[in-house]
Amino acid sequence: MPSQSKNILFIMYDQLRFDYLSCAGHKSLETPNFDRVAAKGVRFTNAYVQSPVCGASRMSTYTGRYVASHGASWNKYPIRVGEMTMGDHLRALGMNCWLIGKTHMQADAEGMARLGIDKDSIIGVRQSECGFDPFIRDDGLHGNAYAGNYGENDGPYNNYLKSKGYDTDNPWAIYANGSVADGQLASGWFIENADKPANIREEDSETPWLTREAIKFVDMHDGPWCAHLSYIKPHWPYIVPAPYHNMYGPEDVQALIRDAAERENANPVYEAFFNNKIAETFQNDEARTKAIIAYMGLIKQCDDQLGVLLDHLEATGKDKETVIVLTSDHGDYLGDHWLGEKDLLHEPSVKVPMIIHDPDSACDSTRGTQSETLVEQIDLAATFVEMAGGTVPIHQLEGRSLLPFLQGRPVANWREFVISEYDYSIFPMAENLGMESWQARLFMVFDGRWKMVHSAGGHAPILFDLKTDPQEYHDLGTDPAYQAERDRLYDCLHEWGLRMSQRVTMSEAAVQHKKGQPQREGILVGVHHEEDLPEEFTALYVGPARQIHFEQQADRVRYGGEKDEAEND
Amino acid sequence: MPSQSKNILFIMYDQLRFDYLSCAGHKSLETPNFDRVAAKGVRFTNAYVQSPVCGASRMSTYTGRYVASHGASWNKYPIRVGEMTMGDHLRALGMNCWLIGKTHMQADAEGMARLGIDKDSIIGVRQSECGFDPFIRDDGLHGNAYAGNYGENDGPYNNYLKSKGYDTDNPWAIYANGSVADGQLASGWFIENADKPANIREEDSETPWLTREAIKFVDMHDGPWCAHLSYIKPHWPYIVPAPYHNMYGPEDVQALIRDAAERENANPVYEAFFNNKIAETFQNDEARTKAIIAYMGLIKQCDDQLGVLLDHLEATGKDKETVIVLTSDHGDYLGDHWLGEKDLLHEPSVKVPMIIHDPDSACDSTRGTQSETLVEQIDLAATFVEMAGGTVPIHQLEGRSLLPFLQGRPVANWREFVISEYDYSIFPMAENLGMESWQARLFMVFDGRWKMVHSAGGHAPILFDLKTDPQEYHDLGTDPAYQAERDRLYDCLHEWGLRMSQRVTMSEAAVQHKKGQPQREGILVGVHHEEDLPEEFTALYVGPARQIHFEQQADRVRYGGEKDEAEND
Repeated sequence: MPSQSKNILFIMYDQLRFDYLSCAGHKSLETPNFDRVAAKGVRFTNAYVQSPVCGASRMSTYTGRYVASHGASWNKYPIRVGEMTMGDHLRALGMNCWLIGKTHMQADAEGMARLGIDKDSIIGVRQSECGFDPFIRDDGLHGNAYAGNYGENDGPYNNYLKSKGYDTDNPWAIYANGSVADGQLASGWFIENADKPANIREEDSETPWLTREAIKFVDMHDGPWCAHLSYIKPHWPYIVPAPYHNMYGPEDVQALIRDAAERENANPVYEAFFNNKIAETFQNDEARTKAIIAYMGLIKQCDDQLGVLLDHLEATGKDKETVIVLTSDHGDYLGDHWLGEKDLLHEPSVKVPMIIHDPDSACDSTRGTQSETLVEQIDLAATFVEMAGGTVPIHQLEGRSLLPFLQGRPVANWREFVISEYDYSIFPMAENLGMESWQARLFMVFDGRWKMVHSAGGHAPILFDLKTDPQEYHDLGTDPAYQAERDRLYDCLHEWGLRMSQRVTMSEAAVQHKKGQPQREGILVGVHHEEDLPEEFTALYVGPARQIHFEQQADRVRYGGEKDEAEND
Repeated sequence: MPSQSKNILFIMYDQLRFDYLSCAGHKSLETPNFDRVAAKGVRFTNAYVQSPVCGASRMSTYTGRYVASHGASWNKYPIRVGEMTMGDHLRALGMNCWLIGKTHMQADAEGMARLGIDKDSIIGVRQSECGFDPFIRDDGLHGNAYAGNYGENDGPYNNYLKSKGYDTDNPWAIYANGSVADGQLASGWFIENADKPANIREEDSETPWLTREAIKFVDMHDGPWCAHLSYIKPHWPYIVPAPYHNMYGPEDVQALIRDAAERENANPVYEAFFNNKIAETFQNDEARTKAIIAYMGLIKQCDDQLGVLLDHLEATGKDKETVIVLTSDHGDYLGDHWLGEKDLLHEPSVKVPMIIHDPDSACDSTRGTQSETLVEQIDLAATFVEMAGGTVPIHQLEGRSLLPFLQGRPVANWREFVISEYDYSIFPMAENLGMESWQARLFMVFDGRWKMVHSAGGHAPILFDLKTDPQEYHDLGTDPAYQAERDRLYDCLHEWGLRMSQRVTMSEAAVQHKKGQPQREGILVGVHHEEDLPEEFTALYVGPARQIHFEQQADRVRYGGEKDEAEND
């Protein structure tokens, strides 16, 4: 049954690790507002993104399709023109779909030009914004501080800063992402500066700014709407304004998930990654600790701002009609497994927070519970379609609605494994491994206990048993004792590889309708005698009359006649 | 090296079996004009279509992509708006791409409407015609003779017939597809009438009509052009005008490729097909013989008309600058393997004629030869791109250019297997087998000797060894002795299933260009100290000057100041 709630506030944080919330057990970081939503909703503890990198992950989430299905497998790989999105599906159900913040979407300018779509038309804007109507679009990361590329600095956030008197071409780079030390810019791009306060008023930093925009949006729109409030943080650069910059100390940093054994006889793909420069930075304790302390401050700020937003919804009564979704596009290794950033497929990278609160009374029985259901983030698009009263178009959406779990209804034949993919073809690691770009792809299959990572480049798979090795230290990918597990997971992967993902123009209903249609339209195949078929079909071709037409035209149409020859010369 | 030939005449017949040509060894059917092209070009003896059904096969050929990649897996399943076609690729290289005849293309009307594309604009027409500019579009099969659906009867061929005095709403149904017996319409839809002459002047039947249209096209266009001359025949209905209707007799019919053993312990999918009504018709000797005699007449007519066209090209000198390609979209069981029609994946259905003549002198060394190369029909799009002087865009086209084989150049790493797919979800057989629509799919892997058919519905695979069993009588799909072969072919299929098929917006060159681009644009990741990077990158963020901007604005932008509080309330 659809949700009776009117609106969906779909909040995404960027690079928020699943275990950096107090409701998820962080040892010292208190996130009372995340916990407040969890207490009213369901927290899914096994939620996975379809790729551990912003662009690919988001394109999957926004289209409800696997990366291999939409093909936008890395940041700013354009999603092809015409690819159906959450916005397309929801608008067709009478629910507008808005963007407030980041998408990392790159428009398929070539495809739009080929199809004659004006990028400034409504259709063009939606094609360029991954199906959303942009209330605010800002992806953060505004690049150079002092030179070049200033054209990109006219985004809404930089314009806001300029309006507040931060008067430089790219105030993001100087203020939001900068501190001051000895009269010099101490840039947030360098982790050595992560312990300094950002050179900006806290209320002018990105998270409070975007929260105020979200409040503006909420106040302006009656609904039904879906609003994708998409925060830029706690994604790097690791720098945060006071008082968040020194709210935590080294004692608050959780223990490293890292073992010397991981580096012994390591899988070549993993080895290439833990030997890269970013990984080496996070193998340095000072850098790692500074980054994490700032990262925790950024999350604390996100939590405080979530509180501001929740208070506003409650004050206006909109909380009673608005579903709230809290998630992230991927995690952050933060030095775990000898790695920084995301990119590979260990839990800190590929698992995300997923909290859904639906105020509809049909969900009362599940409030405050956790679910170990295997969730893929592509399930959100299907969930929203069902919440909006639609039927999930399974020829287009590859995820499944989570609404039954929120409503405590039984679910038959839930998925037995989740898939995540990673394309590292633009990284030097691909070249170091001698990979062609289509070989530099990884596929993760995880069944809730066993996690296998297949390399399209022909390397051995990686295999972890999360039951006996929850920290993923012991790669069983080449251990003969686990051949049966690998075979089983490969069966899953191969079945998935042959899934029907592109028959996007024919719904199941249309396929069913088509059955027998040619015969109804007068196309008969393999019929020996007219008596072989019911008269309703054959009557179209049996009768006395038509010969007359032929005879009437006999002098013209009978072949071989002399008159014809003359006429046709 | 690209071909120096100017034009490509890409001729497709519909449902022409690979072995119904004299150059392919037919026992009595003489096709001197097909043979004439083969004598000047290369005949590929292992050419396979990507699906043994018109629509899906053609959408693969026209897009140069596997069925699972474009998703139009059955007749009139629309190819999605924006899907790149042969026409898009060739026009970008300065070669126009025309259609003369049939495509079986169904426009994605919903997608076009969503993107605001007017179907009558040039872009809209090309989207509706699978990337071709239609000189003539006519798919044949005009349906009802006496009732209903007359709107479809205004196609070019029916209009031609009407202009010639065949005065009824749907002259195709009455004349081209009809004979007369005892003053009654004897419809070509009933195979019992296949031995009667079609009720039409031979020159007005479809094949000569379309040949004349092709000659008109050739005379009107200087090139460079690619013209897809796409005949409707020898596709059923099995009926042909005199003198072709009785040019052959039962003694000309080749021996059945059929064995009682095939029906014993048959694979359930195969069993469902050989028990269907169409199959039963072709299990009847009288029906089968009548159909084949008419089918041979239709092919003979095609050959004669090919001669007319070749003569015209020679008479105008265009033969010297025009590549000629002869192929078909699939074959016809004609009772072999207890089956009629196509649909399954035995050789009579999935293997097609493929003859290519390139007059360019670079091809002189291969004239009149045969090649056993494993060819997929999607190779044609790549071949044409290379002929037109382009580089094959491997992120979009999944086939490979055959030009090196025509030019006798060595080819490294040619494919080791071909793939063909079949979606039977709209057939009653799917329901009889208890299949959901996405399960009613078959995948063929053929490596030149071993052919395996995988069923997505969980049935056992089918396996034939064409070396010891060229007639495909003995299904080894469950024989334990052949487990190793099945495993090997499954490895091929699974690797194919995980191929990168949808990254269609990023060329290899674009991926290579993107390497290191974020850093060049000022996005630094995981950098501990500024000294960790070359100055060209860090200089953007290191300097004394920017603090001044901050200090100048200090009263406004420093956090916590009293003046700020007042201003922002």
